[in-house]
Amino acid sequence: MKKHLALLGLGTIGQAVFNELLATIAPDWQLDWVVVKHLKRHLGLPLPTTTRLTTDWHRAVNDPQVDVVIELIGGTTVAKKIVTTALQLGKQVITANKDLIATSGNELSRLAHDNGGALAYEAAVAGGIPIIRTIQESLAPDHITGISGILNGTSNYILTAIQNQGLTYQAALKQAQINGYAEANPTKDLNGIDASYKLIILVRLIFRSRLTLQQLSPQGIDQLSPRIFNVANHFQRQIKLVAQAQMVNGTLYAGVYPLALTPTHPLAQVNGVTNAITVDSDLVGSSTYLGPGAGGPATANSVLADLQAFIRNDYHHNNPCLPAAHFASPLNQPHAYLIAGKTTPAQITPPITPQALATYQANDPTLAWVVAESERL
Amino acid sequence: MKKHLALLGLGTIGQAVFNELLATIAPDWQLDWVVVKHLKRHLGLPLPTTTRLTTDWHRAVNDPQVDVVIELIGGTTVAKKIVTTALQLGKQVITANKDLIATSGNELSRLAHDNGGALAYEAAVAGGIPIIRTIQESLAPDHITGISGILNGTSNYILTAIQNQGLTYQAALKQAQINGYAEANPTKDLNGIDASYKLIILVRLIFRSRLTLQQLSPQGIDQLSPRIFNVANHFQRQIKLVAQAQMVNGTLYAGVYPLALTPTHPLAQVNGVTNAITVDSDLVGSSTYLGPGAGGPATANSVLADLQAFIRNDYHHNNPCLPAAHFASPLNQPHAYLIAGKTTPAQITPPITPQALATYQANDPTLAWVVAESERL
Repeated sequence: MKKHLALLGLGTIGQAVFNELLATIAPDWQLDWVVVKHLKRHLGLPLPTTTRLTTDWHRAVNDPQVDVVIELIGGTTVAKKIVTTALQLGKQVITANKDLIATSGNELSRLAHDNGGALAYEAAVAGGIPIIRTIQESLAPDHITGISGILNGTSNYILTAIQNQGLTYQAALKQAQINGYAEANPTKDLNGIDASYKLIILVRLIFRSRLTLQQLSPQGIDQLSPRIFNVANHFQRQIKLVAQAQMVNGTLYAGVYPLALTPTHPLAQVNGVTNAITVDSDLVGSSTYLGPGAGGPATANSVLADLQAFIRNDYHHNNPCLPAAHFASPLNQPHAYLIAGKTTPAQITPPITPQALATYQANDPTLAWVVAESERL
Repeated sequence: MKKHLALLGLGTIGQAVFNELLATIAPDWQLDWVVVKHLKRHLGLPLPTTTRLTTDWHRAVNDPQVDVVIELIGGTTVAKKIVTTALQLGKQVITANKDLIATSGNELSRLAHDNGGALAYEAAVAGGIPIIRTIQESLAPDHITGISGILNGTSNYILTAIQNQGLTYQAALKQAQINGYAEANPTKDLNGIDASYKLIILVRLIFRSRLTLQQLSPQGIDQLSPRIFNVANHFQRQIKLVAQAQMVNGTLYAGVYPLALTPTHPLAQVNGVTNAITVDSDLVGSSTYLGPGAGGPATANSVLADLQAFIRNDYHHNNPCLPAAHFASPLNQPHAYLIAGKTTPAQITPPITPQALATYQANDPTLAWVVAESERL
């Protein structure tokens, strides 16, 4: 059966998806609608004769001919209305919108389930890495016990530039912006919120557990003192912004924070804008998936892979909402810390409690610190 | 619809699959048959009441009740008869048998296609890494241009032990055997044939091209001179047995051989029995998949993921046979070589032709050499 598509949004990802749709000979689908914010900007768009361009998303989403709605406008207000409307109509929805899936994934999946539609979001986590399908299908027979990942390319680019090129934080950020790896306002990338959204989505998928930004209380790389990078270099540690989650006896430990990794840690050599996710599971053991975490064409591939699954009628993953697991912050556990301050010599502490760290800090307000973990939690 | 299963073989993988099937509450399937070589060895097997144990595979495979045949006996004679019979009957077949898929994958896929059955073999390449599904589904919208992988865990374990622990080849092999990472007869692992079979399967899947062992003419690690490891250490190169394939203007370049990799090469840090595959593609760019290449539980997960796809009715990949692409050996291209001999000083040559290398060898019969490649082909 031919699928009729509505494509909403022609930003970086939307444009890449549009280009690929146009380049593909596809008897299986027809692009009926392209929805944009400003008509004028897209008047030269090489539209197929069967495709209509509009600024009114209602026309596209409510069109009874449309089977698949591809939401690539981002944000959580209009995008949520669009996805909700489409799912209420029993349509199939593909989105790359991590903010939306992280904050409303439960209710949207329920909508998809209740109305016979579907909600696919391979592109929402780690752009070009097929981690969602791998979890939903390839690792489905397995029992996943924990994940650990580098989920924000901007942060990782900056950390790599600081540690491998010796740049300052500000210079590294500027270089990232010049090279298109950081947005004009990179706040959510640098303060850990972007990585947290992705972790929230993965935790829901893997552990069927709700997790909130408030619970995670993420730490980004924007508060790291320059001193800590010198200490890390001294001890040959790589500082990475790591998102981790582990289920232990019904308690979900999850956090997003910088970690000082030993060189042999599987994530220590992941540099630049590359994302990586290590999955620990009972049968497979440890498996790691690396690839580009962003970028138009890479993310478009994930969108199109979801579309092909719809076309093959191969997508049956409306994960039910479940009650939240008991949550605990890993940072409340004892950890080794990499520390240094004006009066505190550079060192890796033995595992100490957060209270003990607070004592260090009280004695030396200049103290720079980061959790020093060579292994996953 | 409930699937009726026949499980053939209770070796390492078969036993792990059996254990998982028994541990799973599954309204979706029923294990009707277990086929073993020696009944006596399995008399204590905790069989479900609905399961019959036999040494006669015909009874199981010809049973009209049986929908899915799981072939885990290995080899290419009886296994081929079993798979052929099952596919001729229109049944769905799951196999972990790389030798069989590498040598007969084309005709077996055609049988599956012509009789309305299916042939799934996630477990046949890189055991626990879901590379087959990733290629068939997640990267389906993309255009893959090349792959490069460490596909033999035994070889990689030995190379790691030689280079990181300073063992001799013989001591490393013995350690691998003691730890269960090398078979009593490890010939096919060490001479590159095992990695070649996996590459042949991947090439068929990715490039729809037939490739033979004869074309590949693989080099393993069993001919490497001790001298070359000293030279590699001197130049900080990691020697890895790499399987590579690339399609350039309709010509398939493919080979299996040891490469001396720079430390920053994505495969250089893959140690021990871990397998890894890097995929280069137009949309995603570079993505890498790491995990255990063997082992009962890890491989069982791949078998069971195929089974779940059958149960969801999600498996639609009977790749048609295509004519072979024009083949060329990458080793006929100029390469830099890592070389050393009694009269030849240790060095990394500039890119030279195979003829130039032969001249070096003629002048110094003690010459040890390996292709020195920091980048993929």
